[in-house]
Amino acid sequence: MDLVLIAIVLGLLAVVYGFVTSRQVLGADAGNEKMQEIAGAIQEGAQAYLKRQYTTIALVGVVVAVLVAIFLGWLSAVGFVIGAILSGVAGFIGMNISVKSNLRTAAAAMKGLQQGLTLAFRAGAITGLLVAGLALLAIAVFYYVLVNVMGLSLSDAGERRIIVDALVALAFGASLISIFARLGGGIFTKAADVGADLVGKVEAGIPEDDPRNPAVIADNVGDNVGDCAGMAADLFETYVVTVGATMVLTLLLLFNSDADVFAGLVALPLLIGGACIVTSIIGTYFVRLGGGTNVMGAMYKGFIVTAVLSVPLIYFVTQYALGDMNAVIGGENLGAVDPGAPIAEEGTSSIAPFTGMDLFWCSLIGLLLTGVIIWITEYYTGTNFRPVRSIAKASETGHGTNVIQGLAISLESTALPTLAIVAGIIVSYQLAGLMGIAYAATAMLALAGMVVALDAYGPVTDNAGGIAEMAGLDESVREKTDALDAVGNTTKAVTKGYAIGSAGLAALVLFAAYTTDLAELFPAADVDFSLENPYVIVGLLLGALLPYLFGAMGMTAVGRAAGDVVKDVRAQFKEKPGIMDYSEKPDYARTVDLVTKAAIKEMIIPSLLPVLAPIVVYFVILAVAGQENAFAALGALLLGVIVGGLFVALSMTAGGGAWDNAKKYIEDGNHGGKGSEAHKAAVTGDTVGDPYKDTAGPAVNPMIKITNIVALLLLAALAH
Amino acid sequence: MDLVLIAIVLGLLAVVYGFVTSRQVLGADAGNEKMQEIAGAIQEGAQAYLKRQYTTIALVGVVVAVLVAIFLGWLSAVGFVIGAILSGVAGFIGMNISVKSNLRTAAAAMKGLQQGLTLAFRAGAITGLLVAGLALLAIAVFYYVLVNVMGLSLSDAGERRIIVDALVALAFGASLISIFARLGGGIFTKAADVGADLVGKVEAGIPEDDPRNPAVIADNVGDNVGDCAGMAADLFETYVVTVGATMVLTLLLLFNSDADVFAGLVALPLLIGGACIVTSIIGTYFVRLGGGTNVMGAMYKGFIVTAVLSVPLIYFVTQYALGDMNAVIGGENLGAVDPGAPIAEEGTSSIAPFTGMDLFWCSLIGLLLTGVIIWITEYYTGTNFRPVRSIAKASETGHGTNVIQGLAISLESTALPTLAIVAGIIVSYQLAGLMGIAYAATAMLALAGMVVALDAYGPVTDNAGGIAEMAGLDESVREKTDALDAVGNTTKAVTKGYAIGSAGLAALVLFAAYTTDLAELFPAADVDFSLENPYVIVGLLLGALLPYLFGAMGMTAVGRAAGDVVKDVRAQFKEKPGIMDYSEKPDYARTVDLVTKAAIKEMIIPSLLPVLAPIVVYFVILAVAGQENAFAALGALLLGVIVGGLFVALSMTAGGGAWDNAKKYIEDGNHGGKGSEAHKAAVTGDTVGDPYKDTAGPAVNPMIKITNIVALLLLAALAH
Repeated sequence: MDLVLIAIVLGLLAVVYGFVTSRQVLGADAGNEKMQEIAGAIQEGAQAYLKRQYTTIALVGVVVAVLVAIFLGWLSAVGFVIGAILSGVAGFIGMNISVKSNLRTAAAAMKGLQQGLTLAFRAGAITGLLVAGLALLAIAVFYYVLVNVMGLSLSDAGERRIIVDALVALAFGASLISIFARLGGGIFTKAADVGADLVGKVEAGIPEDDPRNPAVIADNVGDNVGDCAGMAADLFETYVVTVGATMVLTLLLLFNSDADVFAGLVALPLLIGGACIVTSIIGTYFVRLGGGTNVMGAMYKGFIVTAVLSVPLIYFVTQYALGDMNAVIGGENLGAVDPGAPIAEEGTSSIAPFTGMDLFWCSLIGLLLTGVIIWITEYYTGTNFRPVRSIAKASETGHGTNVIQGLAISLESTALPTLAIVAGIIVSYQLAGLMGIAYAATAMLALAGMVVALDAYGPVTDNAGGIAEMAGLDESVREKTDALDAVGNTTKAVTKGYAIGSAGLAALVLFAAYTTDLAELFPAADVDFSLENPYVIVGLLLGALLPYLFGAMGMTAVGRAAGDVVKDVRAQFKEKPGIMDYSEKPDYARTVDLVTKAAIKEMIIPSLLPVLAPIVVYFVILAVAGQENAFAALGALLLGVIVGGLFVALSMTAGGGAWDNAKKYIEDGNHGGKGSEAHKAAVTGDTVGDPYKDTAGPAVNPMIKITNIVALLLLAALAH
Repeated sequence: MDLVLIAIVLGLLAVVYGFVTSRQVLGADAGNEKMQEIAGAIQEGAQAYLKRQYTTIALVGVVVAVLVAIFLGWLSAVGFVIGAILSGVAGFIGMNISVKSNLRTAAAAMKGLQQGLTLAFRAGAITGLLVAGLALLAIAVFYYVLVNVMGLSLSDAGERRIIVDALVALAFGASLISIFARLGGGIFTKAADVGADLVGKVEAGIPEDDPRNPAVIADNVGDNVGDCAGMAADLFETYVVTVGATMVLTLLLLFNSDADVFAGLVALPLLIGGACIVTSIIGTYFVRLGGGTNVMGAMYKGFIVTAVLSVPLIYFVTQYALGDMNAVIGGENLGAVDPGAPIAEEGTSSIAPFTGMDLFWCSLIGLLLTGVIIWITEYYTGTNFRPVRSIAKASETGHGTNVIQGLAISLESTALPTLAIVAGIIVSYQLAGLMGIAYAATAMLALAGMVVALDAYGPVTDNAGGIAEMAGLDESVREKTDALDAVGNTTKAVTKGYAIGSAGLAALVLFAAYTTDLAELFPAADVDFSLENPYVIVGLLLGALLPYLFGAMGMTAVGRAAGDVVKDVRAQFKEKPGIMDYSEKPDYARTVDLVTKAAIKEMIIPSLLPVLAPIVVYFVILAVAGQENAFAALGALLLGVIVGGLFVALSMTAGGGAWDNAKKYIEDGNHGGKGSEAHKAAVTGDTVGDPYKDTAGPAVNPMIKITNIVALLLLAALAH
């Protein structure tokens, strides 16, 4: 059977799993009328927001699609549209499952912790498997159509180029939508959250999720459109870009190999993705408490089962695709280059020799790296370890020391992931050169089904807690949802660390694609990518600046939109004085509508920054110092974005999670508990961490990818 | 007259200015007995701290000096010791002037704003000119002894190598002391400041600088040992490293030039430094209010006079040193390389051709860049502009939004300086290749006398305010010192932005010295510095990690030491209940002693990070991937540190200054003024900004330089 068809079947399996499981989830008890009413309001708000967001993005998308069609041809435009639409679909489904499972999780938590966990995790698993499945299907079906239906030949340089351009355009579509979704959703969720807290907890003195707060529905809507829809679109993008980049690199570097081996190599990333969908589905059934109350332990069980089962399956598909695990690929077939030699030194065909076995080992590195990043993230954001406890302790001496310690932890938290990524780069490069790095990244992303499941579980439990509070359910229900939610803070941070970590590897692959493309499309250009070339330094500095500027814009946007929320809530309290004694109902929809408009408005300019920056830098340096230096600066910009962005994103996401859980740790009765001075300081830290971890930090990941992809498209457009 | 002798004379001129002016300052009215008593306590504490700090550093210094002697010879060890001692002397003098001028400034402010400004600024000018003068003398005298006394010949490769190694060792001595001084002083000042605020303002409800607070003297000591001694050592280091690196680069790259031109070129950076000492001295006399109350305007006058007068003087010394401003140097003399060609591509002798006129233009770029950075810093930290006002406004909605907006501003504030530095790199490189960048950096640092004067003025006024408060002087005196101090926040931020900006340029020069050294010392090594080499990526990532880890350590250290202060003050309040009603006196010395011990203990490990990191990275990569990749990773580490460090340092120093002045802006009566909720939020922001701007941020500058210098020394040691 054709390798790509197998991948398509496995992708469809994920979709089937999604449908079957969602029937189970939707069949569960939906709670009482009050709960349904609240959930209905959340659902309505989330759908209204996504509708408006996607309408706005569609306008940008149509313009970009036309530009892609003009500069790169209609096939690329089709790829762009497929990537864009499916990225949107992934977000839409994630949000829809989430808003329907929140009240059911609250209802299930009435029966017990295990029941609540099962329901919330299943809801997460639907989103996770659908994200991975749709991403795999997007590339596999598109590639299948290009090669098997349209008959583009892998052995023809021109037709191979068409395939490459189309795959890059597909990734561009996914990335462009995902940055809007991540940022728009991130601004929405945190503006509502911060705004609701400021005016509710601080000014009016009413608890979180109190139904008298007009911003409370907006806050819950935010969990769904930011943490769920935005996250799903982001991980869809990460998957498509990583697997796509590995295929593109194979197409660019290994075309001189034996035709069968070459075809198998191009399809292998898809097969690895498919294999891990199977193991992710199996893993979901192992997420159970087993008697205790260790929610994080239950999550680990599921992840470990998935990762361990993936090992033999990846071995099997690699052997199946390549035939002989020990046959040498690359190297002598392509011009005898030393294993340690720099990539593409002599043009497009130089690549270190490697075997299928090497790729297998590199895939294991990817699996291992995922596990290590999960473990590090738990250390930095879990309530059982030094970092979170040090922030909680620092809260005793006030707001200032809480924030100082939180910032210190956020800076520190970059160290171990960076060392892990560096080790991953070195070992996989030693094993199989650049292809090794690509396979490590691919294997990381292959686990996306399971990792996203862990993450998407978070907003569901968060919402369930909100519904339990607003519907006035028994205190014990809220306790259970809080226990589930505390883990949610860690799993949410995990996905972000994982996404940015994989982006670190994927960006290297994309940069290699850039240099290889450059050599192929502009053979006469003698571009000097050496650190000794000042234009390389210029590119690195400008690239590293982008995440800072982007982060500043995201943080400011949240502050501004939250200010609007505060004003609206104050106005509602004034207009309807009966709200506080429950004699009047706040106008929830008005606040939702206001945050919607603010988030949409605020997301546009920062999202365009990574799209326009590579183009501007290229043309400015072109004017000042000629084309070769412009290419060098542009290439360095791509690496500058990743070198700068990795640290900004890691520090923001881990720091934000740590602040949030330090607050939860205090609320659990430590350092004075709820209402103490330490708790007030911890609330400040949590507020500061909010836009860090849910707006600016996670959006850096698609930002890095967009910058890289735009550079690839720019090269293609210049060459056309 | 010998060119180097002229530079020595001009350096001595700065010392003479320092002596004459300090007699004037010390001759001024020293206020009443109460003031003298307080100032005496501050002075005693500061001297005790510096004594202990220098004793500790001396222990480390002796060990390092022995290592330098063993691996690089006794001449390098002598250079190291000179650099180290003079760096310490610069800090010591700065501190001493500061502790003697603070009470005199308070006394002068009793007479009027202009009188206070004159005295405080003169005190700053003494430190500024002595820093610049001593730095110039350190290099000029050492170089003079090497060449004119010991008779080392510029035309002999081996003897030239001895000169290079000795100059690098001199820079190393300066840098090593300066990182300890910056970090130790930074931890001291902010631990005392944060601790005093937390327990005084927040817990006991007594105002800032209240004599009942046992930490109040420690807080004032901190201004002198951190902002003054630490800053002076830092700028001494920056000067020595930048001017030294330019000379080293000349020695390495241009030795094939005509002997007279070569000798002139090597001495030219010293002459430019000397010329700007003259203009800085003249400039100090133009810092006057001229009737109004615009303190920042008075500062600008002095700076602009210095910068404008420097233009013809730099032209003159360049012509004097080189003879013909339009004769081509480099280029064809050295093997005909294109102007835009990468540096050192063909070994040590390839350098783009340039003329004296080109160097002159590049020096002007350095002057311009300094002005632009001052202007940008004022925009981001001054109370008249959007950034500070946006933080003040965000304080209205609470602690959280204050910090969010402050972080957003701190991220944003990196953009314009980066763009300015990038523009400076491009234009100066276009004009004169790498030497152009070196001259832009040298001209920036040549203005150090004036820039440090503006900075050192800050802690003097800060202390004067404290003394006025503690001595119970009339409210109007405190108002005047507050007006002077508000500008101090900006000028302190200016120096940090300036130091890190010049470090951006100097690091490029140091990196070029590294690659040139590498080619000379290991001619057989074919090191690939291309971004396509994964070990380059590994080096960039590890380098960018260093400032994050370093920042985390600095922030944590402040938090920990501040916690100790809080506990001690609480204990004193308990042991001596009469403190609050003035019937008992707090034991100030005990708190000073405690902070001293804490700061010394906490400074060691972070300071060793940049010393050990290059060595560890080299040997780890050597073991894993061989020497050529180890050299590549090490080189990339150097650039990674600057790419990462530039943003960390810029964001921390500007952000911290903005937070501080947002508090001041509210205290001026905006957004509710002192005591309002907005003010409390602004105090939190100020506390957060404290370790940002005075501990972690500024110490990044010497950290970058140390990493680079250790790499150069490592090369030399490996080659020996």
